[in-house]
Amino acid sequence: MELPSKILENAIDALGTLPGVGKRSAMRFALHLLQASDAEVADFVSAIQRLKSDIHFCSRCHCISDTPVCSICSNPKRNEKIICVVENIQEVMAIENTQQYQGLYHVLGGVISPIDGVGINDLNIASLIQRVETEGVEEVILALPTTMEGDTTNFYLNKQLQRFPNLLISTIARGIAVGDNLEYADEVTLGRSIAHRIPFNSLNS
Amino acid sequence: MELPSKILENAIDALGTLPGVGKRSAMRFALHLLQASDAEVADFVSAIQRLKSDIHFCSRCHCISDTPVCSICSNPKRNEKIICVVENIQEVMAIENTQQYQGLYHVLGGVISPIDGVGINDLNIASLIQRVETEGVEEVILALPTTMEGDTTNFYLNKQLQRFPNLLISTIARGIAVGDNLEYADEVTLGRSIAHRIPFNSLNS
Repeated sequence: MELPSKILENAIDALGTLPGVGKRSAMRFALHLLQASDAEVADFVSAIQRLKSDIHFCSRCHCISDTPVCSICSNPKRNEKIICVVENIQEVMAIENTQQYQGLYHVLGGVISPIDGVGINDLNIASLIQRVETEGVEEVILALPTTMEGDTTNFYLNKQLQRFPNLLISTIARGIAVGDNLEYADEVTLGRSIAHRIPFNSLNS
Repeated sequence: MELPSKILENAIDALGTLPGVGKRSAMRFALHLLQASDAEVADFVSAIQRLKSDIHFCSRCHCISDTPVCSICSNPKRNEKIICVVENIQEVMAIENTQQYQGLYHVLGGVISPIDGVGINDLNIASLIQRVETEGVEEVILALPTTMEGDTTNFYLNKQLQRFPNLLISTIARGIAVGDNLEYADEVTLGRSIAHRIPFNSLNS
């Protein structure tokens, strides 16, 4: 499609870089912004600019934050003795969304993946060890993705954390998702969910 | 979901104002921008800002343009004797995309809609009449949406254009869409497509 304006074309290309946005959606977005008021577009742009200019990463857990230490780490109601290790900020938000977790987090910033050139030193692992050493941590929950890379990272972290004999190292439960049909579950998941079966009464706790 | 950063929350809200973007997509967009490089975000933002600051509307057809007169109106290969009247810029691009039309356009900027407070004076109707008067136009194609408001506007324009006795006033063909099943077509469309049937041989012209 030949567009009557190069400026519009550039805006469509820019909006098309957003994840999952195709040419057609990008054009809808661009035409929407074109027809929005000056103030609306200024607000839109400044909200995005501030993402880059004003956002911090928490010095303790590496989650994003508006302040040097994030609102989770500085909340006195959270249980400082438990650290949940996650890959990215997205997972912090997903877990927060469940309202089932009251401990702190540690954002690794990725998982070990030689194919993508991500090694041990690219991740926030040293600071995790340091936190366990100095913050009186009693439990580390490994909540990395259940992929090959996630498992490799879990394995490495588990090994590194063995030096703390009193530390409990746990991982998130794996099994059949709530609402899923057994017949469509993959064999590994189904196999694990039988091997790691739990007392029926614990489901309601 | 409680977010650890107000800045991120603002960016998500801003991205959520784009048409068809929900909270989840807006969050994906925001996290994508957060993880993009400074240069990428600067490009993204400037492409959107230029939409507001640098874009013109063609003084002749009211389509968007990078110059005072748009690339379609100033293209000497286009047939200046035909004007296709459309509601918005989107329709110009959709028709251009078909590569079936070589005339010029006239963007009304909406259709008559008393319920939305859009009256005759809010649309680029006077400039259309003036163009027909002064530009030696031989045909006006009414390509407005096939809605009640579109039909009302068509009717009004048709009446206004009666003052030019030699002007051909046409409208886009309505009927069964290519690839559609007759059984699922609505009655009005099917009825019209039979009443306005065309010679079979003209299909291939």
